[in-house]
Amino acid sequence: VVIIGAGFGGVAAAKRLEDEAVDVTLIDRNNYNTFQPLLYQVATAGLNAADVAYAVRGLFRRQRRVFFRQGVVRGVDWNRSEVLVDGQQPVPYDYLIVAAGAAVNFFGVPGAAEHSLPLYTLEDAVALRNHVLGQFEAAEVDPTAVEQGALTFVVVGGGPTGVEVAGALAELIDKVLRDDFHDLDVGRARVVLVEQAGVLLAPFSPESQEYARRVLGARGVEVRLGEQVAEVAADAVTFADGGRLATRTLVWAAGVQAAPLAGALEVDQARGGRIVTEPDLSVRNHERVFAVGDVADLDDGADGRLPQLAQVAMQSGRHAAEQVLNTIARRPHTPFVYVDRGTMATIGRRAAVAELATGTRLTGLVAWLAWLVLHLVYLLGVRNKVSVLVNWAWNYLTWDRGPRLILGRGARPPGASE
Amino acid sequence: VVIIGAGFGGVAAAKRLEDEAVDVTLIDRNNYNTFQPLLYQVATAGLNAADVAYAVRGLFRRQRRVFFRQGVVRGVDWNRSEVLVDGQQPVPYDYLIVAAGAAVNFFGVPGAAEHSLPLYTLEDAVALRNHVLGQFEAAEVDPTAVEQGALTFVVVGGGPTGVEVAGALAELIDKVLRDDFHDLDVGRARVVLVEQAGVLLAPFSPESQEYARRVLGARGVEVRLGEQVAEVAADAVTFADGGRLATRTLVWAAGVQAAPLAGALEVDQARGGRIVTEPDLSVRNHERVFAVGDVADLDDGADGRLPQLAQVAMQSGRHAAEQVLNTIARRPHTPFVYVDRGTMATIGRRAAVAELATGTRLTGLVAWLAWLVLHLVYLLGVRNKVSVLVNWAWNYLTWDRGPRLILGRGARPPGASE
Repeated sequence: VVIIGAGFGGVAAAKRLEDEAVDVTLIDRNNYNTFQPLLYQVATAGLNAADVAYAVRGLFRRQRRVFFRQGVVRGVDWNRSEVLVDGQQPVPYDYLIVAAGAAVNFFGVPGAAEHSLPLYTLEDAVALRNHVLGQFEAAEVDPTAVEQGALTFVVVGGGPTGVEVAGALAELIDKVLRDDFHDLDVGRARVVLVEQAGVLLAPFSPESQEYARRVLGARGVEVRLGEQVAEVAADAVTFADGGRLATRTLVWAAGVQAAPLAGALEVDQARGGRIVTEPDLSVRNHERVFAVGDVADLDDGADGRLPQLAQVAMQSGRHAAEQVLNTIARRPHTPFVYVDRGTMATIGRRAAVAELATGTRLTGLVAWLAWLVLHLVYLLGVRNKVSVLVNWAWNYLTWDRGPRLILGRGARPPGASE
Repeated sequence: VVIIGAGFGGVAAAKRLEDEAVDVTLIDRNNYNTFQPLLYQVATAGLNAADVAYAVRGLFRRQRRVFFRQGVVRGVDWNRSEVLVDGQQPVPYDYLIVAAGAAVNFFGVPGAAEHSLPLYTLEDAVALRNHVLGQFEAAEVDPTAVEQGALTFVVVGGGPTGVEVAGALAELIDKVLRDDFHDLDVGRARVVLVEQAGVLLAPFSPESQEYARRVLGARGVEVRLGEQVAEVAADAVTFADGGRLATRTLVWAAGVQAAPLAGALEVDQARGGRIVTEPDLSVRNHERVFAVGDVADLDDGADGRLPQLAQVAMQSGRHAAEQVLNTIARRPHTPFVYVDRGTMATIGRRAAVAELATGTRLTGLVAWLAWLVLHLVYLLGVRNKVSVLVNWAWNYLTWDRGPRLILGRGARPPGASE
């Protein structure tokens, strides 16, 4: 069994198969699994990069029949039943689970791909952290940069990611950077959250939406609803109504589409490039091939499609693995049924919204604590759990942020020519 | 008071001045201070990068008269008393403390600068970790790479850094990676420690030297004494005796010299480019300018020069700050006297050597525990101390290494064209 992608879906599939009588090869371009729900905390210096990543090989150390291969998948040779890996020997399969995840969707907005900062991978999160802190360093060196938008941070997209990153940025600036910069009026920094719909957190109830808007506003985030981005440049964003805002930082949290691999497979694709699946998650016309998670177009059992969430990826990955076992055991396949446990989003310190499938709606401190506990439980690895817990406790008690380091690719001191 | 460099020397100087009636500006190319004695653990996936770095601004949050500026210093205009910062306005000073640190010294060995991996900065450590883990990934994809030296790791330099990195690499490979790679004979990996002198750990006693050699050998490190590197290429190292070893990884731990800034200052320089200082640490012919730490040539009170160690940097940084205060208060300057508390080096799990100034010599478990405690004490920041302690406990108890991630600049999957 070959699994493409070691995200939530791919790892869930491999974990289901790890003790079965099958050889499993997991392929990913990174040697680690990323816990994406906490990326925004890496981007805002609340957590270390390593806290939200887990070495894939570490997940399967004792499972000698689970193999990992680091590589970039370019396509599949359907005739030879081989996965094509960039610069490597092809990997033959009997069963294939495609869990290649998503890519950012810029919806064709001019300049967005070149000039905005997405937040989907760990590299994205580190790059955003470096960029934000670098803007403050640059503004202290040259205060005229503030008029040019050095301290104006625009977040596009009012879904959970956008709300979380806007709330965390406002908190970082107000509670931490204000004390860090002794020669800069940090009060001039702005965080602007732009959403083209009329509400934030579209899938939530109106009460939760209103709560999120009120809390963000109280914490200094300018929420602009019904505003559409028309064009992005390195130094400004232009809106559909002609308005213009000078900014050097545009965080793109407006949506995702299926990973580009979906297009290279020459299979049927639905909205957002997602692979069309049968009820058992097999790919249409490829009965030994399954698609799961963000890359797959999954029926929600009613008239709609399932959202691109970690829970969906984990459950569908596990289901696809079970269908492989069913095929081997000559048992009939079963249709995938998603069990919705609810959704949540955090807004900042002691503020979150949670809506359980049972209809229970939580806001404020209780929702925030529920969010913390749930994310700790789902985070992979005891060491990472301890490290995240220590960091959270530290941040909460001291109003400090440990890892506010400008480190790695693209990091360069203000003005430096090398 | 302007301080160039936020390493051990610069931070010690700023800390001494933080509550005095002076304005202090600290300039560094990075926005963080690096705890260099633990870099080798970052390079061998024992610690997170963020664990050994501390945001400079975080060190002086409550000291509103201490300013930080991130920038690359290019020189000093002695006539105008200004520090020249790349791409920024010059920074005027009344008193200047040069604590610019060291740079790797390749001693003119052909190919060393291009093809070897130093271990002096945090970026170096992350790059080395990515490279080492990447070689294992590449070898599992293509086993013929092993003959080409993919799993041959050569460490040049038998001082504390070389001994520590060789010991930690052997441990990483033997205890961790052996379980990680299910399709690769990890037993074929080699760690070779090359030292041109006849002994390891030259400044230590013969007993400690012999202990280090014995323990490294028992843990699988090939120690080659009296062997000199003649040339380094991307795929091999050539020795002075004509011998050749296929390797893709050469860690350069053979020595350091003064940072290049020392040469740009047009002051007297001694061996290794170090700035010549008067007994009070002022720079010859520049009475309001001091040089401290690795960039300075410091008298050891006998006939020799002080080694480039963290302890020397901290003590000299503090002393220079005190001379600034003496000048302001019209008190006479005092000569710098280094208080040697001893030296230590760790070899691996439960093995270290320590030699105290009192003459006490420790090896094995006791020295290792002393090393752990001392490094925890000197590490900056409570959060970092806790994080390091958690990681150490985890690594010790589980024989695991958490952050074995290939992440950041230069990281690319085997064979991938992008």
